[in-house]
Amino acid sequence: MTHLNETHDPALRSWVESANQATNDFPLQNLPFAVFRRQGSGEAFRGGVAIGEQILDLALAAASGAFTGEAAGALQAASGETLNTLMALGQPSWSALRLALSRALREGAAEQARLAACLVPQSDAEFAVPARIGDYTDFYTSVHHATNIGRQFRPDNPLLPNFKWIPIGYHGRASSIKVSGQTFPRPVGQTLPPGATEPTFGPCKRLDYELELGVFMGSGNALGERIAITDAEASVFGLCLLNDWSARDIQAWEYQPLGPFLSKNFATTISPWIVTLEALAPYRVPFTRPEGDPQPLPYLDAPANWAQGAMDVQLEVLLQTQAMRDAGEDAARLSRTSYRHAYWTVAQMVAHHTVNGCNLQPGDLLGTGTLSGPTLDEAGALIELTVGGKQLLTLPNGQTRGYLEDGDAVVLRGWCEKAGAARIGFGECVGTVLPARQV
Amino acid sequence: MTHLNETHDPALRSWVESANQATNDFPLQNLPFAVFRRQGSGEAFRGGVAIGEQILDLALAAASGAFTGEAAGALQAASGETLNTLMALGQPSWSALRLALSRALREGAAEQARLAACLVPQSDAEFAVPARIGDYTDFYTSVHHATNIGRQFRPDNPLLPNFKWIPIGYHGRASSIKVSGQTFPRPVGQTLPPGATEPTFGPCKRLDYELELGVFMGSGNALGERIAITDAEASVFGLCLLNDWSARDIQAWEYQPLGPFLSKNFATTISPWIVTLEALAPYRVPFTRPEGDPQPLPYLDAPANWAQGAMDVQLEVLLQTQAMRDAGEDAARLSRTSYRHAYWTVAQMVAHHTVNGCNLQPGDLLGTGTLSGPTLDEAGALIELTVGGKQLLTLPNGQTRGYLEDGDAVVLRGWCEKAGAARIGFGECVGTVLPARQV
Repeated sequence: MTHLNETHDPALRSWVESANQATNDFPLQNLPFAVFRRQGSGEAFRGGVAIGEQILDLALAAASGAFTGEAAGALQAASGETLNTLMALGQPSWSALRLALSRALREGAAEQARLAACLVPQSDAEFAVPARIGDYTDFYTSVHHATNIGRQFRPDNPLLPNFKWIPIGYHGRASSIKVSGQTFPRPVGQTLPPGATEPTFGPCKRLDYELELGVFMGSGNALGERIAITDAEASVFGLCLLNDWSARDIQAWEYQPLGPFLSKNFATTISPWIVTLEALAPYRVPFTRPEGDPQPLPYLDAPANWAQGAMDVQLEVLLQTQAMRDAGEDAARLSRTSYRHAYWTVAQMVAHHTVNGCNLQPGDLLGTGTLSGPTLDEAGALIELTVGGKQLLTLPNGQTRGYLEDGDAVVLRGWCEKAGAARIGFGECVGTVLPARQV
Repeated sequence: MTHLNETHDPALRSWVESANQATNDFPLQNLPFAVFRRQGSGEAFRGGVAIGEQILDLALAAASGAFTGEAAGALQAASGETLNTLMALGQPSWSALRLALSRALREGAAEQARLAACLVPQSDAEFAVPARIGDYTDFYTSVHHATNIGRQFRPDNPLLPNFKWIPIGYHGRASSIKVSGQTFPRPVGQTLPPGATEPTFGPCKRLDYELELGVFMGSGNALGERIAITDAEASVFGLCLLNDWSARDIQAWEYQPLGPFLSKNFATTISPWIVTLEALAPYRVPFTRPEGDPQPLPYLDAPANWAQGAMDVQLEVLLQTQAMRDAGEDAARLSRTSYRHAYWTVAQMVAHHTVNGCNLQPGDLLGTGTLSGPTLDEAGALIELTVGGKQLLTLPNGQTRGYLEDGDAVVLRGWCEKAGAARIGFGECVGTVLPARQV
């Protein structure tokens, strides 16, 4: 999986001209998947692959006759309203499809004429959640986030003793996961004001985002079976951006003893595009842990996990307030980090999740947890950046923020770049806070 | 919903003779729903309604022409592989179908000849999970359970301050919910042995059951909207038995700070039959709280919640060890209680879950949490009955149990009975522990 092949060659160019621009998220070396239709068309949603500023319509491509064999079967599986069927096919099929698409979209490909008719501009498209997500699990894999948050919730005991042994995770809500562009009313609920002994009820006052990556499962495991860590990556379809919106005041009052609930389940936003693990192969980096930290237990340990277990996906969070939108000002960056700092890898998340026999199914989504980096300015949530709302951030237009206000749009971006490899990107994940509904 | 009508008349008798036996779970006044097919037939699963020892095949009944109007539409919706479509129709349709089925299955009904051809003996049937469960949420509504458990996990602080304000809940795993008859290998995982500072890995040593009821949602709510407490019961399709299998040693080590995960998601077993809220109307009882406890916040409060908010569903847990099975001995009762002791009602669970705009969808499942009664012998889990495995239970054959052993089958049963109303039952929910897979 971490293995490079002809599809990663940085010299490859596409006959889709916009794919060859250096700053583009979707060159020929990326080929991420989404589910889309023409905006406002009422057409059926179907699978698509990004190429430059275009989408290759996979239902049309399947019907075009331009592909044969395993790739044709995979295209057929990607033609429906969700990608679950493609995800269930497994890694060899995804890889066959990637190779065939790479070849057919290259400059000089014989398929150009047939496939040019299968392109839809991204600017004309609307997207859907790319899979029927049977179950959604959110992990907590950044030791920096866990420590920063733990310091605020449990000052005497910031990092719990299980953190360095267990990839901590909990079940989240699948029904409220929507694709980029999601808007949602500020949640209302119970909170315990500082010093009070009885809760009050009303709109959340400490609304936050969380910068995460989402991991879409491909082939899963049967109930009662498990996925060994050495097989874990082959069971993963790909990664997307994920914003795990969080109501910190609701969370503080509700989370004991069974974990976050209404503080999280009102909305989760993901990017439309899923970047496959194969596309990320050039950006694999060694997985490291601080000296003296425990060796993972055997079921969470494998040589590959150390050699190329991590991924250098660069990430940033931007904020655009209503005033900035009204003034035509761009979103302002709040922080920047990389997924390489995670304490637990994707393979460890999968191996841990299934070690007890829990079944993961194609299309299931795992969140990485907030991906804060080692320094506080690399934090992936306002609760960290503003130290619990106490140190306000000042935006370029002079506005300040402790937590999110109504009208705020949060933009997540992710990309990989380095010398000797093609830059690939995740596109954007955008969500906007609306005022609370009448209580 | 708490309202009695002709379908509740205890004098009603069915032309299906086995429905008229006094100890039967499925008289004409019950009419619970399941999804079934003939055992080993490879037929498509379809909806069925229990009547005595028979199942009325709803796909055949729909095709029989015996029904018209709203009931015919509801039957059509109940003919597929899950009941989600029926659940989405809403309370007036469920009620119309119940009335039509009640009339058509009564002694002397004109439909007898046509419907007699639509019966399948329950003994010939196999069942499936009755709905596609989009999301599963488990609550924690028994103050007795919360106190008993809290005493063991947090001796100094057994009942947390939020318990009497919030119907505490957390998201569970939908993929591992299976219907009665489920078998599963003992989970393996990390545990922290007493006094140790580093975890060990291996089969769970403190495997437990939890006696719960499951609440299947009918018509739900759109994301961003909420279900008011006064509308909450009309959005609920019905109740089933639910066993929330729990690995206590895995739970103790993993549950901070985000709640139970691998300790719960390896298996959850539900009964095949869903008893509608309308069928339970004769068994509604006042909802009470101890003097001095807080009044629920307005969004969790309503006159109906106090007058008839609770349900007197009697519940029992039985255990049959492998030795008992080999000797042909019946399962032995471990405890008995009633759902009337719950601290939070079904309506409160629904109103709370949606107050922040979280969307509940048809077929979603809510667990009540372990339904322990006021005294320790009414507890719904071994961790309570054996005080954390320290006070062994002695079974009729002399075997003892602290926690579950391999080969143990746990049987949940539920029923309602009182003078002046027909006895109705939930059938059984059975699950069996298999040895752990090779680690």
